[in-house]
Amino acid sequence: MLYLVGLGLSDETDITVKGLEVVKKASRVYLEAYTSILLVDQSVLEEYYGRSIAIADREMVESNSDEILHNAKSEDVAFLVVGDPATTHTDLVIRARELSIPVRTVPNASILSGIGACGLQLYNFGQTVSMVFFTDTWKPASFYDRIKENRSIGLHTLVLVDIKVKEQSIENMARGRLVYEPPRYMTVGQCAKQMIEIEDEKCEGAYTSDSLAIGAARVGGKTEKFVAGTLEELCSTDELLGPPLHSLVLLGRRTHELELEYVREFAVDKLKWDRIWKKDYAKQL
Amino acid sequence: MLYLVGLGLSDETDITVKGLEVVKKASRVYLEAYTSILLVDQSVLEEYYGRSIAIADREMVESNSDEILHNAKSEDVAFLVVGDPATTHTDLVIRARELSIPVRTVPNASILSGIGACGLQLYNFGQTVSMVFFTDTWKPASFYDRIKENRSIGLHTLVLVDIKVKEQSIENMARGRLVYEPPRYMTVGQCAKQMIEIEDEKCEGAYTSDSLAIGAARVGGKTEKFVAGTLEELCSTDELLGPPLHSLVLLGRRTHELELEYVREFAVDKLKWDRIWKKDYAKQL
Repeated sequence: MLYLVGLGLSDETDITVKGLEVVKKASRVYLEAYTSILLVDQSVLEEYYGRSIAIADREMVESNSDEILHNAKSEDVAFLVVGDPATTHTDLVIRARELSIPVRTVPNASILSGIGACGLQLYNFGQTVSMVFFTDTWKPASFYDRIKENRSIGLHTLVLVDIKVKEQSIENMARGRLVYEPPRYMTVGQCAKQMIEIEDEKCEGAYTSDSLAIGAARVGGKTEKFVAGTLEELCSTDELLGPPLHSLVLLGRRTHELELEYVREFAVDKLKWDRIWKKDYAKQL
Repeated sequence: MLYLVGLGLSDETDITVKGLEVVKKASRVYLEAYTSILLVDQSVLEEYYGRSIAIADREMVESNSDEILHNAKSEDVAFLVVGDPATTHTDLVIRARELSIPVRTVPNASILSGIGACGLQLYNFGQTVSMVFFTDTWKPASFYDRIKENRSIGLHTLVLVDIKVKEQSIENMARGRLVYEPPRYMTVGQCAKQMIEIEDEKCEGAYTSDSLAIGAARVGGKTEKFVAGTLEELCSTDELLGPPLHSLVLLGRRTHELELEYVREFAVDKLKWDRIWKKDYAKQL
């Protein structure tokens, strides 16, 4: 059996009792470590589980999944995923099906629901978008049209931000040196800047630098932190937010009084927040 | 401290290790039991936790929350919620804040992410809607416009279905008898019928009886079951799906080949599914 086990969002104790039982009795344990991270190190997990863990990087999961699935018809293999394993790694599940390996998922908290702690109604979120690190020559902006669609019907948008782990520099790659760059985690500030950059380029009014948003850090953890403000304000609140992981929510017009009351607690400038809320958000739908 | 503890979706072992620690050491433990249910009884939870649990019905939470919050400034109170506590019970949290009671949330799996097990990409879901039991004179249809909005931009819609627990008949209420009706849980079939009824009335083409959808039962549990078909087909698959809880996903046009491959496994009529998919869904966006 292949078990996809969600680890939740924060530390070693966020695993479910069911998930912990699976990890303890599995023949092999893999940790998917390239789409998200926990706020604790692998060694903490290994000690807590009493098991050693093999790190599954993108290459192993996408090109070498038969290694993970080896013998899984007769043995139990645990594949650990930060957050919730739902819909991630569909390719792995489809491959397991082809090999007639039974698959079971052990759900856990996801950023898609954990973000509700910021006080916005989860029911009013539209599609989720991802923001990657821009380079001088590569600024993928597919997020823009999606946000525009969400906002056209009044919905909030969760923006998940890029992480880069186990990346090689072009030079090291060219020379075949297996030396990896230090991991990089996008901040809310970088995300907000890139959003404003694309709006300035496209000028289609999907949002403005005065649009209201919430910066989130370490959602689901003890040091969880939210900061609310305009996109422009969020360009310079990274220090307030602290260490990764970050994510950002751009507000839609379909807002509720209860949401206001809850979210304004996080506003960097409450009077400005109230003013823009009243003008552009309250009772728009 | 007020702890809002998510229980996950299925049974007693879906609680996180962190949540279980909170439950074991809290002064009082409440279980919110009117918006969703686990697939196991209260007694199973009590035995597993080694604690007795007070059931918090809607009246207690909405009108009498100070009883729950009593002394929570100096004691720990655990308020258990099926699924994930994010954004549910905002009113309780706001009341706690007014009383200067610190609040912490212990996240868990939510139906909003658990539904990803059906194979559709969670990123492509729009706003979530709720379906209540229609009566002869009361057929609230606000879900219809929301679905229409989601579909206008190609997104899937999760439809959460009604549950009725601890309801009184009008006769018993009039006579002041505290006798409650047996609990009722809406099925996918009832939900699909009500959706078609409203489309037939409004004729705005938000969807048709031939629109593709997925019926889901006991998401996140060992007996989790999905059935895929047209809305019309889903009117008569309740036996296949089995016991509650049910929910339904109406597909949006923004679909991906990987989703097709995964979801068609659940189709009641694979050829029909393929035909409609090819005609109305594939490569529409």
